[in-house]
Amino acid sequence: MTLLDDLASLLGDELLIDDDARRSRARDTWPRSEFDQWQARLVLPAAIAMPSTTERVAETVRLCRAHGAPMIPRGAGSGCVGGVLASPDSVVISTEGMSGLRSLDPVDGLASFGAGTMGIDAENRVRQDGFTIGHWPQSIEISSVGGWVATRASGQYSTAYGNIEDIVYSVEAVLPDGSIYRSRPTPRASAGPDLRQLLLGSEGALGIITEVTFSLRPLPEPGVRQAFHFEDMATGIDAVRGVIVPGWLPPVVRLYDAGETRRHFRDHVPKGRCVAIFLHEGPPGHAALEAVAVAELCRAGGGEQADLGAVDHWFEHRNTVPTWTELFEQGLVADTIEVATGWGQLARLYTSVTDAISAVPKVIAATAHSSHAYRSGANLYFTFAAQPSGPEEYQSVYDACWTAAMQAATGCGAGISHHHGIGRVRRTWMADELGDAGVGVLRAVKAALDPDNLMNPGVLVPD
Amino acid sequence: MTLLDDLASLLGDELLIDDDARRSRARDTWPRSEFDQWQARLVLPAAIAMPSTTERVAETVRLCRAHGAPMIPRGAGSGCVGGVLASPDSVVISTEGMSGLRSLDPVDGLASFGAGTMGIDAENRVRQDGFTIGHWPQSIEISSVGGWVATRASGQYSTAYGNIEDIVYSVEAVLPDGSIYRSRPTPRASAGPDLRQLLLGSEGALGIITEVTFSLRPLPEPGVRQAFHFEDMATGIDAVRGVIVPGWLPPVVRLYDAGETRRHFRDHVPKGRCVAIFLHEGPPGHAALEAVAVAELCRAGGGEQADLGAVDHWFEHRNTVPTWTELFEQGLVADTIEVATGWGQLARLYTSVTDAISAVPKVIAATAHSSHAYRSGANLYFTFAAQPSGPEEYQSVYDACWTAAMQAATGCGAGISHHHGIGRVRRTWMADELGDAGVGVLRAVKAALDPDNLMNPGVLVPD
Repeated sequence: MTLLDDLASLLGDELLIDDDARRSRARDTWPRSEFDQWQARLVLPAAIAMPSTTERVAETVRLCRAHGAPMIPRGAGSGCVGGVLASPDSVVISTEGMSGLRSLDPVDGLASFGAGTMGIDAENRVRQDGFTIGHWPQSIEISSVGGWVATRASGQYSTAYGNIEDIVYSVEAVLPDGSIYRSRPTPRASAGPDLRQLLLGSEGALGIITEVTFSLRPLPEPGVRQAFHFEDMATGIDAVRGVIVPGWLPPVVRLYDAGETRRHFRDHVPKGRCVAIFLHEGPPGHAALEAVAVAELCRAGGGEQADLGAVDHWFEHRNTVPTWTELFEQGLVADTIEVATGWGQLARLYTSVTDAISAVPKVIAATAHSSHAYRSGANLYFTFAAQPSGPEEYQSVYDACWTAAMQAATGCGAGISHHHGIGRVRRTWMADELGDAGVGVLRAVKAALDPDNLMNPGVLVPD
Repeated sequence: MTLLDDLASLLGDELLIDDDARRSRARDTWPRSEFDQWQARLVLPAAIAMPSTTERVAETVRLCRAHGAPMIPRGAGSGCVGGVLASPDSVVISTEGMSGLRSLDPVDGLASFGAGTMGIDAENRVRQDGFTIGHWPQSIEISSVGGWVATRASGQYSTAYGNIEDIVYSVEAVLPDGSIYRSRPTPRASAGPDLRQLLLGSEGALGIITEVTFSLRPLPEPGVRQAFHFEDMATGIDAVRGVIVPGWLPPVVRLYDAGETRRHFRDHVPKGRCVAIFLHEGPPGHAALEAVAVAELCRAGGGEQADLGAVDHWFEHRNTVPTWTELFEQGLVADTIEVATGWGQLARLYTSVTDAISAVPKVIAATAHSSHAYRSGANLYFTFAAQPSGPEEYQSVYDACWTAAMQAATGCGAGISHHHGIGRVRRTWMADELGDAGVGVLRAVKAALDPDNLMNPGVLVPD
């Protein structure tokens, strides 16, 4: 029996082999593979498995393993770092067949969803019961809850509500050997290493996440919005630090450089200024108290109150995700690169990376904003655009921008990825991130759990 | 050359082989091994290595590995689950030689300490610069910062400030192969699995933590203290849930059952009542706002304001740690067992475990308090005492109490350890905690990183 025969006999109509199905699931939204698709040279997988239960995922994994077939776990495909990319002999195992609410416990504030549930559907479902997940990635309308875990995602409300690792209560996953792992559903444990953390950020290389349970929050009262603009990024960074360090935690804290402020908020903020927008939420009375305190801190830090329309504009457009192909057709390549570092290095990181990208020939824009703040530092989320001479230059210009940014970032001591993950685009710099010993640990864990390297080969783990 | 010759030549006076040195570091404060010491039948290790630098730790590890000698990493020995227990052929690698501040960055709010630094010394040091670590285990005066990481510790202020995994910024460790791992010092990363999490809770079985960097908080303004007493634990649990779920986060939230309330707070709380004590801290204005809101919620939940002396009493005695030998001499065996579960099961867990322990012959007390609260649940921290007929019964009575508690806890779906770790005393129940697939992952990781099982054999990983 061939692999496809065996899969068909196991999965029936949960196996797709038509071209359309394979083409639409052969990649994520990494610009490089979108470019390949645009150029009609995308490689398709052998088949798409879309098992509807965890047990069927496990059987699919065991079958692929028996045939030595590479497996590519895939959620909704909104990842942007090349975490999903088919090879001709591979089977894409999609979580699309496992979606929807599995249980909701209003006393403990827990909701379990099949991994393929779309983020926005999960959020809307818990809202019916008066809860919020509190995780708002820009991709919420096009990403799955399993993908959030697999990529160790961040949401726009992270400054108060944490990143995905702070919101996930328990996970269920099929491991590379076909066994089913379910983490103990408890609020906290000291029972050895937290094994969930091997799945958070595993990018499909250590297993397939099949179910995610979130620790919910009650829907808060309507929040308070405000915005301030600053002379430059360094001043804005100091002001945001001045808000966070004493313990204020607005769910949304975003600081845009002058270029992005102009691009997004030109109707609301004077030219050349850097805008910081805040959303305050919390238990009764907290948001009002915090808003007043933050306003005082921003003014003391050189900020001037900005038109509230800036915040409203962001809220209206915050889930908009661009399509790379639209840009290709205009002769442009672009991407985003998010990294993080301590407060003391943040202004230098901003300058170093934007300068480094700007120095790449054909680059026409390199800007940034900070969207996630922590006690000891924050992220910077860079956007670049370039206008190569023609499609034959797209890849080299794109790669040159990434190399420039990563070298500048690691040169400042920054981490190489704040929240998009590693995939293929950042793999070269994993030794900078983890050190030789850390790469050794990652390789050892991968080899121990997936000795034949069949689970999403090519991502995350450096060669 | 024998192992001891080689070690002496490497370490000089950083190797101790005298009986006193070996006896005082042959164990942690697990009641069972303290009992063995009291009975003068404690096994001593071959030697105590006390390397003063990370590089020397690495050389010590490589040397022990070359000789096939078991290594037992040890901090200050305040662990209470049998995580440190010598065998005659083993080398205890103590972190005592690596203590003190290594760096302090006031801008990022980061402080790095040698792993052997005592907790209270680290806290006092950062206070000189206006910071707090915010981690207050009861053992703070007798535990080391490396031990906090190795045991995945919790502190008394965890409800607002998090547990050790929320406070640690980066770690340095010597891995079982003698390589030195340093996690990238960034505020957050999506760069594969968070490898620090393999060391958090590793209990010496996956490496030796040599340095810990904390993300600090500025010292808060003096907080607001208050206490309320409730009719029973179920009512108190509901009230605490009513405080936590809307988003209030007092650093200290402790609810004692009637037995412990009587034992500790008899001068301040009416007999038969369960007291809840709160400490509120935060940025300016927050503590006052929270205190008023929490008082209203507690009263609405059936609470009556308690004498503030109860809170003061707790603050005065909160770092007192009993000595088991004092109890042995009085004919008593005792221990504490902390577990955690969701809000909805907490009252049942309280009753099940206290009933199960109370049913063990010779038991004279089984009480509990809850000391760490989360959005979706909380811990319970049980204390038992028994009066066996004589020392020959100490061990069997002790074991029977643990078995009764663990069976009752797992029967309620609780996690088997909230913060003390696994060590030897809980190893039997690791399959309940992790499931078969989880045990498989833990074993695979252990085998991958420590193929000869030389690093603290006998703890954590089930046989």
